[in-house]
Amino acid sequence: MSSSPKYQYENLKVHIYPEGVAHVELYRPKRLNAINEALVEDIRVCFNTLGQDSTIRAIILSGHGRTFTSGIDFKDNFLMKGEPDTDVARRAYTKRLHIEWFQSAMSALEKCPQPVIVAMHYGVYGVAVDLCTAGDIRYGTKDSFYTVKEVDLGLAPDVGTLQRLPKVIGSDSLARELCFTGRNMYADEAYKCGLISKLFDTKEEMIEDALKTARVIASKSPVAVVSSKHLLNYSRDHSVDEGLQYTAVWNSAMLQTEDIPKSIQGFMQKKPAHYSNL
Amino acid sequence: MSSSPKYQYENLKVHIYPEGVAHVELYRPKRLNAINEALVEDIRVCFNTLGQDSTIRAIILSGHGRTFTSGIDFKDNFLMKGEPDTDVARRAYTKRLHIEWFQSAMSALEKCPQPVIVAMHYGVYGVAVDLCTAGDIRYGTKDSFYTVKEVDLGLAPDVGTLQRLPKVIGSDSLARELCFTGRNMYADEAYKCGLISKLFDTKEEMIEDALKTARVIASKSPVAVVSSKHLLNYSRDHSVDEGLQYTAVWNSAMLQTEDIPKSIQGFMQKKPAHYSNL
Amino acid sequence: MSSSPKYQYENLKVHIYPEGVAHVELYRPKRLNAINEALVEDIRVCFNTLGQDSTIRAIILSGHGRTFTSGIDFKDNFLMKGEPDTDVARRAYTKRLHIEWFQSAMSALEKCPQPVIVAMHYGVYGVAVDLCTAGDIRYGTKDSFYTVKEVDLGLAPDVGTLQRLPKVIGSDSLARELCFTGRNMYADEAYKCGLISKLFDTKEEMIEDALKTARVIASKSPVAVVSSKHLLNYSRDHSVDEGLQYTAVWNSAMLQTEDIPKSIQGFMQKKPAHYSNL
Amino acid sequence: MSSSPKYQYENLKVHIYPEGVAHVELYRPKRLNAINEALVEDIRVCFNTLGQDSTIRAIILSGHGRTFTSGIDFKDNFLMKGEPDTDVARRAYTKRLHIEWFQSAMSALEKCPQPVIVAMHYGVYGVAVDLCTAGDIRYGTKDSFYTVKEVDLGLAPDVGTLQRLPKVIGSDSLARELCFTGRNMYADEAYKCGLISKLFDTKEEMIEDALKTARVIASKSPVAVVSSKHLLNYSRDHSVDEGLQYTAVWNSAMLQTEDIPKSIQGFMQKKPAHYSNL
Amino acid sequence: MSSSPKYQYENLKVHIYPEGVAHVELYRPKRLNAINEALVEDIRVCFNTLGQDSTIRAIILSGHGRTFTSGIDFKDNFLMKGEPDTDVARRAYTKRLHIEWFQSAMSALEKCPQPVIVAMHYGVYGVAVDLCTAGDIRYGTKDSFYTVKEVDLGLAPDVGTLQRLPKVIGSDSLARELCFTGRNMYADEAYKCGLISKLFDTKEEMIEDALKTARVIASKSPVAVVSSKHLLNYSRDHSVDEGLQYTAVWNSAMLQTEDIPKSIQGFMQKKPAHYSNL
Amino acid sequence: MSSSPKYQYENLKVHIYPEGVAHVELYRPKRLNAINEALVEDIRVCFNTLGQDSTIRAIILSGHGRTFTSGIDFKDNFLMKGEPDTDVARRAYTKRLHIEWFQSAMSALEKCPQPVIVAMHYGVYGVAVDLCTAGDIRYGTKDSFYTVKEVDLGLAPDVGTLQRLPKVIGSDSLARELCFTGRNMYADEAYKCGLISKLFDTKEEMIEDALKTARVIASKSPVAVVSSKHLLNYSRDHSVDEGLQYTAVWNSAMLQTEDIPKSIQGFMQKKPAHYSNL
Repeated sequence: MSSSPKYQYENLKVHIYPEGVAHVELYRPKRLNAINEALVEDIRVCFNTLGQDSTIRAIILSGHGRTFTSGIDFKDNFLMKGEPDTDVARRAYTKRLHIEWFQSAMSALEKCPQPVIVAMHYGVYGVAVDLCTAGDIRYGTKDSFYTVKEVDLGLAPDVGTLQRLPKVIGSDSLARELCFTGRNMYADEAYKCGLISKLFDTKEEMIEDALKTARVIASKSPVAVVSSKHLLNYSRDHSVDEGLQYTAVWNSAMLQTEDIPKSIQGFMQKKPAHYSNL
Repeated sequence: MSSSPKYQYENLKVHIYPEGVAHVELYRPKRLNAINEALVEDIRVCFNTLGQDSTIRAIILSGHGRTFTSGIDFKDNFLMKGEPDTDVARRAYTKRLHIEWFQSAMSALEKCPQPVIVAMHYGVYGVAVDLCTAGDIRYGTKDSFYTVKEVDLGLAPDVGTLQRLPKVIGSDSLARELCFTGRNMYADEAYKCGLISKLFDTKEEMIEDALKTARVIASKSPVAVVSSKHLLNYSRDHSVDEGLQYTAVWNSAMLQTEDIPKSIQGFMQKKPAHYSNL
Repeated sequence: MSSSPKYQYENLKVHIYPEGVAHVELYRPKRLNAINEALVEDIRVCFNTLGQDSTIRAIILSGHGRTFTSGIDFKDNFLMKGEPDTDVARRAYTKRLHIEWFQSAMSALEKCPQPVIVAMHYGVYGVAVDLCTAGDIRYGTKDSFYTVKEVDLGLAPDVGTLQRLPKVIGSDSLARELCFTGRNMYADEAYKCGLISKLFDTKEEMIEDALKTARVIASKSPVAVVSSKHLLNYSRDHSVDEGLQYTAVWNSAMLQTEDIPKSIQGFMQKKPAHYSNL
Repeated sequence: MSSSPKYQYENLKVHIYPEGVAHVELYRPKRLNAINEALVEDIRVCFNTLGQDSTIRAIILSGHGRTFTSGIDFKDNFLMKGEPDTDVARRAYTKRLHIEWFQSAMSALEKCPQPVIVAMHYGVYGVAVDLCTAGDIRYGTKDSFYTVKEVDLGLAPDVGTLQRLPKVIGSDSLARELCFTGRNMYADEAYKCGLISKLFDTKEEMIEDALKTARVIASKSPVAVVSSKHLLNYSRDHSVDEGLQYTAVWNSAMLQTEDIPKSIQGFMQKKPAHYSNL
Repeated sequence: MSSSPKYQYENLKVHIYPEGVAHVELYRPKRLNAINEALVEDIRVCFNTLGQDSTIRAIILSGHGRTFTSGIDFKDNFLMKGEPDTDVARRAYTKRLHIEWFQSAMSALEKCPQPVIVAMHYGVYGVAVDLCTAGDIRYGTKDSFYTVKEVDLGLAPDVGTLQRLPKVIGSDSLARELCFTGRNMYADEAYKCGLISKLFDTKEEMIEDALKTARVIASKSPVAVVSSKHLLNYSRDHSVDEGLQYTAVWNSAMLQTEDIPKSIQGFMQKKPAHYSNL
Repeated sequence: MSSSPKYQYENLKVHIYPEGVAHVELYRPKRLNAINEALVEDIRVCFNTLGQDSTIRAIILSGHGRTFTSGIDFKDNFLMKGEPDTDVARRAYTKRLHIEWFQSAMSALEKCPQPVIVAMHYGVYGVAVDLCTAGDIRYGTKDSFYTVKEVDLGLAPDVGTLQRLPKVIGSDSLARELCFTGRNMYADEAYKCGLISKLFDTKEEMIEDALKTARVIASKSPVAVVSSKHLLNYSRDHSVDEGLQYTAVWNSAMLQTEDIPKSIQGFMQKKPAHYSNL
């Protein structure tokens, strides 16, 4: 495990494993990983940078310390952006740009080409739900709980939960109840509804398993993995026919890859194939 | 509990609770709440009126008496609309307008800004399935059962089930089987597949719990709740990126609300905030 | 049971039941139903032909012999299509057309107007997952397992899995994990996540039950059944409001059917109605 | 010409011609047809009512007196809607509903099933441009001029101009220049760019010609005319393939009309066919 | 010029020029090219076949004899399809399939990868307008005239005019007037509104010029030409951002073509490049 | 006129006028403004920076020296990006990212909130057409000519022309002919088809007039102007109803601006209003 000089952030710890796995940890130890503007910007920059780093093939996101996060940092005046201006329209203009910046940080998990496994323990509050639904695969510990907290701050979630949560869990009734009431959803229910797809006794077991899955993904053809993520994102947002049409064009180039004969050869010779980076 | 003079309908009973909760009951005691044109029109008018009443913050819909409903009222010649005209095209024209009217009554639950909890017991037949899927949250008793009955009448459901059911339960295979066979789905399966998100022993317990949930919702910031419902509806029907863009514009105004400082102050002072109506 | 001369294929066995049920079996006994180009073309032609045959009201697809399929046939050089040409662009052009042909074969299950029940036992590998998600209802035996195998060949699935699987199982996290890792999903998990909606001890029980369900569907009004499938497909790919609008136009003609008075009369007289073919 | 008791409005004059043509005039003689809330509501109600009146087959909209309109009525505090509330979010909520009401009045021209010919003379300011672009066919006199005036009031047009004008005139560059500068476009340029499709020396000639065209339209099969308008609106807002699919469903009923054999018979016998109302 | 044995149709004459240009003529000399079912099917098959023939690089469509076409052939009972069945729903079902077949024949011009120049003289009635708007480039003689005739038959056009005409001419007002009134539009107006982009004194001059343009197109890189047509069709039906995204994927393969270095070399050496077929 | 230190680029000259107008000139004097990667990146950065500079209210883009541009710079190996990699799939992956970067530079004109006037003289080749169609308003001199040159390089345009040109000129037939043949379109035809909306004898007159228009725009309420551009872009890419809905939400905040009372007061007092920056 190396701590790449390329990935130094104030509020994130990044570990690069030689197999092409990056492990990103939320890291604000004094504030229980409370989410402030600086952390959001770090997430945005970190995942955009990882996304352009073809030596990285899979990513894990978890929280350092006692909890995934303690939620939004009230010391940071996030929600007051744009206030100085006295004109409502000008404030609205500034606020919209601010929300779009925030959204782009959460969406960085979705837009980065490599799969992102989000491994969560203890508290997953408010924007942390927005954040984790932008990942590809979600794991949780038995003591984890999930709270769409925005309603208790007097606002509707605006950085991803309302868009992605219902599609992630496939249960409209539950998604709405969580958003309207702000109640906690505990690990069992989160597992049952599919928000998390594996449940672990301890954080350590979870991280170990996440690493194992990440290594499996990192060992596969990056043409296959990156294409699958890209096309899954595209297809979620389009009709089946449009998804198929786009996929046909995409694969008209990608099927010309050397990874396919390599894979078949590996399969025939019963030896794992090794694929070069994208 | 008051019975508002504003909400008098032949086929619905409406109770207004002082906390801002409206409880609407299907009410055709002699016909086991069979759904006829007059009831459909009452639903349309009632939910449109509730939707414009900013003193109402959450709504419950249930069935008065022994069953949620006994299904469509065959004494009402619903399915014969447009028949008098002898020209097929002119009949089609009239029928389309009639279907659109009917759809608008079901969709009134979805379009009204406040969350709607549909609490169902015993029989939920045919159009009742269309109706309940247009609500936000669904509860059911252990003796409830759900039947997409249209196939047995020789028609495809046309007032919402085909659009909303697969999205609500997140299981295409099951939705299709129900629609093609017209079989009953009992409470356990309905709970397992997510059509209903809570299961109750008795109707009384269900109504009590629905009221409790409705009161919780009614106590929250109406800016937050109404925005969440509006944005959930919008986001279900658009790509993630389009949902995010629309949300950013929406919240550019909504984040300027007094409810946010009120909420934070309440949070700091550990006293529940009180929010004015929309 | 008759083996219609109309439905003779090298790689499929088709049985026509007098009740209007067609049972299609993948049939390459020497190759464990491995999927080659000829089989794909047979599927395309067979389901397009069934789709135009109004005497057929429901279809079952299963695998002859020991397994649903052993996956793609490596003896067939599927993945090398377009190779002879030396220009990358011209190869891409040819490959795109080839993928679109392949997609059209899988989508033939979805586009044929009658409901298709896919009944699977033992191995369901790679393109078999694409194939089964294009069906309407999926059944599986306890020894069945499902593998999104493409990643191990160095490519992203391009004939339906990425488009349909997440919508079928309603769990994004799981769908992505399966696509990225290529791991087996066994029958229990497939049942739990909704990929299959019934689980059977043996293949025989499964086929018997599938036939029973198919016969039930075949006994219903074809106007109702065919309309329901068509509108479910349409509504999956459109917003709720667009789905409703299209449905209203569709039913403006379909509600003028003789099947409705027939159904009501049957209902009144407690005798099953008999409906003529489409 | 009769002045139907069904069509009495404070701010509109409606003349019903026996051939099935309605002529609606903006009518606020003391205010040069300045557009206030009452007039907008009259437009909304009038066109919705006409839309349900199958004896009406074509509609003309023009302005009574010296000018089509003098623009928005500043005495009416349109732009201050929602102001009383002191909370920005609540004002935004009210304003949105108010804009949607206003939009629905303009769109009433587009949504009413019959073709609407808008015949304009002299000033066509601000919301009058929104209004006229919602019509089907536009005529103008040589002294007419068109001004997207909103920019000079400090706001973007929000009741239709930005949506429909570029599609109507097919020139993006010009549409943008008009919206950004608020300059007058005179009749010649309006004719050249296609905003109006006929140019007349006098208002009298224009009305006469509009009536002639309206009578021609009213003499045609209402199935054909109403279908064409409906499908043109739908197709403008969808891809070509989606427009074709919707049209095929629509016409599957409409081609069963008696108007087709009537038309063919009339054609053969060289006598005009007479069609009954929708 | 050769008359390819591959392109023999009863109602079309096809001439293949050695430069890769196909000239298709409507050919029913005894019926003035009246459009019947057999001709429609010939168009469908012919353009689908041409679309798969990579030796063909550009296509011209014109009418043999005195007129482009005399319109729909009333001797053919096109509009009576589906009539035998007595049930309205079953007739509607058949009619929809028939319309979709007809649409697919018209759309064959749009879907075939090569550019299609439609060269028209004298009468262009009814479905001929549907047909020509599915082409890429339209030329006309000074004696040509264009009539959206469907309204006079009691139906809305359903094979392309309502979808494509407004997009082709960029004038909504004019498109609607033509559809509602069924009036003739003569060559000058057709040229002015952009329906045709060149105007010719005689049919001979027109065909000669069309051939010249077709030869120019046929001499270009087929990768460039076929990609441009495909992407123009796609972009017309999607947002600018979606069009750009799809184009980027498409060109990620196409930019690897040998045609680019060939083109640059030709440019440098001032010699025309020669490109191999697709 | 000041040359802001904030806007220093190697290949662009930027002049800032005190009224809030920025004049950007393509500036590669030794290469006749040939477009290379460095210039594209300068455009991307410059327009993104201008877009965030609220002191700028309108922008002009023109070409320094003898011609707008001489087209793509063949000395720059644009079209060879991604070549080093030997795997087709990996090259395709790199090329797609490169095209997306290039597209984002062109789209920077469209995405920047202020209106952009593109003033063109003499040659407007290849990517220059992509570039100018991303602007809001286009002016041209009588000696200007426009060439969709990509076809002669063996590729389809991929940075905007195929998406925007047909929507800008509203003539599908012409757009396709230009793309397939690569012929020059001279100023007169460009004016007639609406590609440019004003025609000038000399470059000097054109720049003067562009500055005049830009100053007019800069004097208007920036809330009104920026909202109009944003909503025109949105509405071009959505259905009319979706455009209206989005506009209503947008203006629910923007109508609360101080610019409206300022405007009305200015109007009443017949004195121009002064608006603060966004």
